[in-house]
Amino acid sequence: MSSPLEAALRERLGRLIGEELRACEAQILGELAASPVPLIRDLGEYVALSGGKRLRPILVLLSACLGGAPKARATRLGCVVELLHTATLIHDDVVDQAPLRRGRPSANARWGDDASVLVGDHLYARCMALLVADGDLAVMEALAAAMVSMTEAEVFQLERKRAGQLTEADYVHIIRQKTATFMSACCRIGGFAGGVDPVGLQALSVYGERLGIAFQIIDDSLDFDADEARFGKAIGRDLREGKRTLPLIATLERATPDEQARILATLRGARLAEMELAEVHRLVKVYDGVGYAVARAGAYAAEGTAQLARVPSTEAREVLTLIADYVIHRDR
Amino acid sequence: MSSPLEAALRERLGRLIGEELRACEAQILGELAASPVPLIRDLGEYVALSGGKRLRPILVLLSACLGGAPKARATRLGCVVELLHTATLIHDDVVDQAPLRRGRPSANARWGDDASVLVGDHLYARCMALLVADGDLAVMEALAAAMVSMTEAEVFQLERKRAGQLTEADYVHIIRQKTATFMSACCRIGGFAGGVDPVGLQALSVYGERLGIAFQIIDDSLDFDADEARFGKAIGRDLREGKRTLPLIATLERATPDEQARILATLRGARLAEMELAEVHRLVKVYDGVGYAVARAGAYAAEGTAQLARVPSTEAREVLTLIADYVIHRDR
Repeated sequence: MSSPLEAALRERLGRLIGEELRACEAQILGELAASPVPLIRDLGEYVALSGGKRLRPILVLLSACLGGAPKARATRLGCVVELLHTATLIHDDVVDQAPLRRGRPSANARWGDDASVLVGDHLYARCMALLVADGDLAVMEALAAAMVSMTEAEVFQLERKRAGQLTEADYVHIIRQKTATFMSACCRIGGFAGGVDPVGLQALSVYGERLGIAFQIIDDSLDFDADEARFGKAIGRDLREGKRTLPLIATLERATPDEQARILATLRGARLAEMELAEVHRLVKVYDGVGYAVARAGAYAAEGTAQLARVPSTEAREVLTLIADYVIHRDR
Repeated sequence: MSSPLEAALRERLGRLIGEELRACEAQILGELAASPVPLIRDLGEYVALSGGKRLRPILVLLSACLGGAPKARATRLGCVVELLHTATLIHDDVVDQAPLRRGRPSANARWGDDASVLVGDHLYARCMALLVADGDLAVMEALAAAMVSMTEAEVFQLERKRAGQLTEADYVHIIRQKTATFMSACCRIGGFAGGVDPVGLQALSVYGERLGIAFQIIDDSLDFDADEARFGKAIGRDLREGKRTLPLIATLERATPDEQARILATLRGARLAEMELAEVHRLVKVYDGVGYAVARAGAYAAEGTAQLARVPSTEAREVLTLIADYVIHRDR
């Protein structure tokens, strides 16, 4: 939390929705602490309280601010989306066999794949129960559609990875379905809870979707040159796993046939040698794959921000704009 | 499908709800075939169409028959519960690292843990979307509560297994939460869909719960002496994995201190030697652990059947009684 932009954002969030974010935090902890099974509490808290940015509850709460309704319900929905997000992180780390998450051993590294699969499933079920208790079919529909889309994209991504093929169009399709539909749903349900009008709801949905695409492109770009300690994940891990993200896809587009062949041969290797990885990193730098990706992310974020012209000019709207800025310029 | 009881049951089910079961089957296939991602279709169909007994949709449909409402909605809910069940099977086999399911390689053995985790998640999400489209909060509440209970029990079971401890009370607690609450929910939502009155709903819920306990005890007992080809799972696998089920718990209760020590030492072994396993099997036979478990299952099934006195005397009620019989006497 060192960049001036992040500090400014935190400060404004604190003034605008600080109380709700603290209540949301307490509810997340309360939901996990309510379980009679220690392994659920321990593993759930370990992941949920490991210093995530709480971007999804923030989107729910800010979107709710654009309407006039009280924020208690948005706070509850913020808790649900963060628990859903926690469940996806737990399963993703099993799927990727990730050793680290946010700078610490991943839940699967610490408690095993079996416990992680089951606790993730339990959190999904708890979220469904919370949504049923909330009782709004429109909210459930938005989140169910997002979960269908997200999980479908994860399988598609795995399929493409196994096939060893991924175009920029495939890549954008995947991150749109995987990350963006969920952020879009967060904005949408926040809008529902806040009583935002249909025009505003539509604008929020598009804003959240473009923000999500930008967010994921930057996440994938940070894998190439973030400060490992700040980013909290091992740098170059996507590449090591043979995952093709936008900086690499852009590099492949621009490289010579010989360089392309070398990159592809490296990706196909079962165990990627450090020297070959370093060579791929060098080519990504030469062809400015990260620069290309960040520019694309910036364009998506700008599209999202432009949508906000259709919602009332309030402090919440300014902060949503600031978030789009932060998503592009963050270093973790 | 060779035992006379199973054949008689099939025949009566065919007459009573054959059309609905076929429609349910078509919907299950339709849901899976609707996915644009081949891996979801292939893995999903592989598990969903691998010769399961369809007990849960049957419970939904028969329960619905006890009311007067048309059965189209119960058919749709039957499809949902079978897809939910399919998702739990896919994840269970990852958790247990099971090589076989219904006599064939498990989905994880064939497509990998990563694909199995993700496709299971996708099926859960699809079920939630189907339930939202159905739009009945009472149905969603029953199923969400069952999923919360089921997944919590799975984590508790893992915790107990790691602790190397399991009493008969723990065991019954686990299977009640894991298997029985879901079967109870199937009966309950079938009752909702059929328009069954509150007394009938309550009776169905208890019937389904007791049936589920009986079902799981028999499942665990079959692990000790079923015909492997008919059962479709490797016999003795629970034991090999150090899982303590009722036949073993009963044997431990009755064995001499020396025999107890031998059994426990065998269970604690990281890799169980065949000779030691054979010795445990011998002791389970000597102390009739399976006989004890089957008797307990019979008592639970009888409690369930007794509840049916509170619903109208119809053919559906007779078939529900027959199912309780079948659950106890099945050999697969």
